[in-house]
Amino acid sequence: MAVDFTYRLRIPHRSGSLERVSGAIARAGGLIGDVETIKIARASSVREITIESEDDEHADRLERALSEMDEVEVLERRDRALIRHEGGKLKTVPCHPLATFQDTRDAYTPGVARACLAIAEDPSEAARYTMIPRSVAICTNGTRVLGLGDIGPVAAMPVMEGKALFYAQFADIAAWPILVDTRDPGEFVEAVARIAPSFGGIHLEDISAPECYEIEARLIERLDQPVMHDDVHGTAAVSVGAALLASREGGVELEASTVGQIGLGAAGLGIASLMVEAGAGRVIASDPKEDTHAAAKERGIEVVDMDTVMAESDLVVATSGRPGLIEPEMVRDGQVILALSNPSPEIEPEDALAAGAALAFDGTIVNNVLGYPGIFRGALLAGASEINSAMKLAAARAISEMTSEAELMPDPLDPEVHQRVAEAVGEAARESGVADRGRTPPETGGSTTESD
Amino acid sequence: MAVDFTYRLRIPHRSGSLERVSGAIARAGGLIGDVETIKIARASSVREITIESEDDEHADRLERALSEMDEVEVLERRDRALIRHEGGKLKTVPCHPLATFQDTRDAYTPGVARACLAIAEDPSEAARYTMIPRSVAICTNGTRVLGLGDIGPVAAMPVMEGKALFYAQFADIAAWPILVDTRDPGEFVEAVARIAPSFGGIHLEDISAPECYEIEARLIERLDQPVMHDDVHGTAAVSVGAALLASREGGVELEASTVGQIGLGAAGLGIASLMVEAGAGRVIASDPKEDTHAAAKERGIEVVDMDTVMAESDLVVATSGRPGLIEPEMVRDGQVILALSNPSPEIEPEDALAAGAALAFDGTIVNNVLGYPGIFRGALLAGASEINSAMKLAAARAISEMTSEAELMPDPLDPEVHQRVAEAVGEAARESGVADRGRTPPETGGSTTESD
Repeated sequence: MAVDFTYRLRIPHRSGSLERVSGAIARAGGLIGDVETIKIARASSVREITIESEDDEHADRLERALSEMDEVEVLERRDRALIRHEGGKLKTVPCHPLATFQDTRDAYTPGVARACLAIAEDPSEAARYTMIPRSVAICTNGTRVLGLGDIGPVAAMPVMEGKALFYAQFADIAAWPILVDTRDPGEFVEAVARIAPSFGGIHLEDISAPECYEIEARLIERLDQPVMHDDVHGTAAVSVGAALLASREGGVELEASTVGQIGLGAAGLGIASLMVEAGAGRVIASDPKEDTHAAAKERGIEVVDMDTVMAESDLVVATSGRPGLIEPEMVRDGQVILALSNPSPEIEPEDALAAGAALAFDGTIVNNVLGYPGIFRGALLAGASEINSAMKLAAARAISEMTSEAELMPDPLDPEVHQRVAEAVGEAARESGVADRGRTPPETGGSTTESD
Repeated sequence: MAVDFTYRLRIPHRSGSLERVSGAIARAGGLIGDVETIKIARASSVREITIESEDDEHADRLERALSEMDEVEVLERRDRALIRHEGGKLKTVPCHPLATFQDTRDAYTPGVARACLAIAEDPSEAARYTMIPRSVAICTNGTRVLGLGDIGPVAAMPVMEGKALFYAQFADIAAWPILVDTRDPGEFVEAVARIAPSFGGIHLEDISAPECYEIEARLIERLDQPVMHDDVHGTAAVSVGAALLASREGGVELEASTVGQIGLGAAGLGIASLMVEAGAGRVIASDPKEDTHAAAKERGIEVVDMDTVMAESDLVVATSGRPGLIEPEMVRDGQVILALSNPSPEIEPEDALAAGAALAFDGTIVNNVLGYPGIFRGALLAGASEINSAMKLAAARAISEMTSEAELMPDPLDPEVHQRVAEAVGEAARESGVADRGRTPPETGGSTTESD
């Protein structure tokens, strides 16, 4: 698993020093990221160099290699990710800070009773006077986290905070991690349904299959707000977006293509199902676990073996969780490969391209962070009662149309992506008749009450 | 119930106009708050005047009175509280916004896996790498909200958001409203216990008695983090703080005083119990509901009738929920009266003072917003496993010592109050041996990683 460490180095302050250091890093197999100049003195400078290494052991080797260089001193080595996680990643802030006595009268005692009464008299006013319609619960029991497996809800918290971060920064959605301490689907549903009134949407995350299907189905049935398991449907929307884009790039129609799915776990089944809904010519899939086959067949997916997938597909999507599963010699000339397992893909994109693939992406590029913030925002702003296939396909199309000339897949740090996805999803919600279940919620307080 | 409306008026722009308007407002019984100048033209100016009125009907009368004035035009009337509540009151923000590609590598893929693994290997690392130790769930089923009664969880949301606002602004605590959709204590406990791993502390709010006692007791037993019903214990800490302050002002010792409690609901029982623990000479209480008496007697409280409370107490605390319950003729000379029912007190402080009280406060002054943010912050920073009496009394003492010369009770908008309460509570947690159940959590990310 890739690790980014920052190495603080004292090196001679003269031309050629950085070249020498870069050379040593390259020979030790490190990949240089940011270089920051911390201090420059007459004879020496202090630089912080971020180096991607394969694992801790590799990072140790890099440190030794740097330490053994002439005139180079390693002052400190830091784990960038762990430092960034210290204290957690999210906080709450008031839309309007309390500055004056009148502020507390308006937002707290006695004014708050006005808002409570308005909602008690007409429950739909909650969409106007609370943050509920722009909030999402990110619910997990931590039974299938990244490629790490069943690490439990608390160890899954950094992922949930990370998801919430994107919601906060790019979708103006107040998302909150809800760690559900149970492996039992019934107990999970019960707990989430009980607290569901607090939230406009329910985002399920990192729950193992097949329990995740039951949990999602039961919550959808029981609740009147949008419920979506992101690993299934968010990933599907983004992957179909990538497929649409690849088809366009290759000058072929998805309708005329064979799409092959490797792995029929939650993500794989979601992707293959949405490919069917998107109108792909033929969707085939493989999974060594036979108990995954029935659900796939029900959804119009042809179950074959992996060799057949590789041999017959124009576009291959892999979500097997097995790094290196796709050998270069399996790759067909001109094939599109989306090897999405995290943190390590089934085949490295550069190896797939070298083996003849027309296009190849991994999970860092085809990442569901391109989907869920806009999908939920669109659904919530439209007052949608669910997130249906039309909305997921609208998100996929919006993503596929956002590609810049420089990069094929859009950049998740580009706010426009999330805005376009939200607009497309909202439009699809209205067209498919699931919008306006309540009143449309206003935007975050910030902008609406500037004059008061 | 008091209502603050803003009246936007066009009035002649000459000396004396505001006097004339003020006079009309006074004659109609309105209380002027903020006056804001919106626009000044040659002949007229537009002002926004906030007027506190008794209710909507009174506000209508005020509007008519203003409209009928010569040369005065009412352009608009707005409900300050409702406007302030539009869109909700709270949002989430990243501790460090994602600005660069490296940021997403650190906070999300692939870096997030580092933090997950660290916690999976040593669960106590969650205190370091997540926001859990600085987060609180504000849990309610909305069965007893303000003086409004059982309005349900969703209509209670504005109160929960208001509570969360103070946590965010004054205690650096990420508090999140959790609306629990059940009246059954068992189901409530089950739902909250299931999601409790998401939060460092559990703040119970606006739950009716006697269910609230069972819920709190069972959650305390089941969970290893601090659990506190704020209406009981937060109110108690602040009220005892006011009592200590009043004793000091009056030059008497609480130990030599008789404290009388009117109303043995959740708040009243909490206050009277903490008065006993604080060492009050004698604690007497009254409540027409006989089923409240046993619990009071168990806690060393003498149950009497209300006349006896009024006749024999040096300090009277009323939490009856019955506006105007205390007649001026019941007030003893030199008595201290805390009439705490919201939104309307048992006796208006000015009436109590006119009737001979030495000191009189209502719930806008003796407000539990002075307590809970610092109490939970102190408990969380100390890594406390519970909030015990020693900690509540420490909070009370800290509040009583924060009085300024200008005002007897401290101002909840003064950050120092909350900081002092937190320090005192943390110290009491350590002294009483309930601290450091895990590692001490770091502060919000903001300050700790500035250099990266």
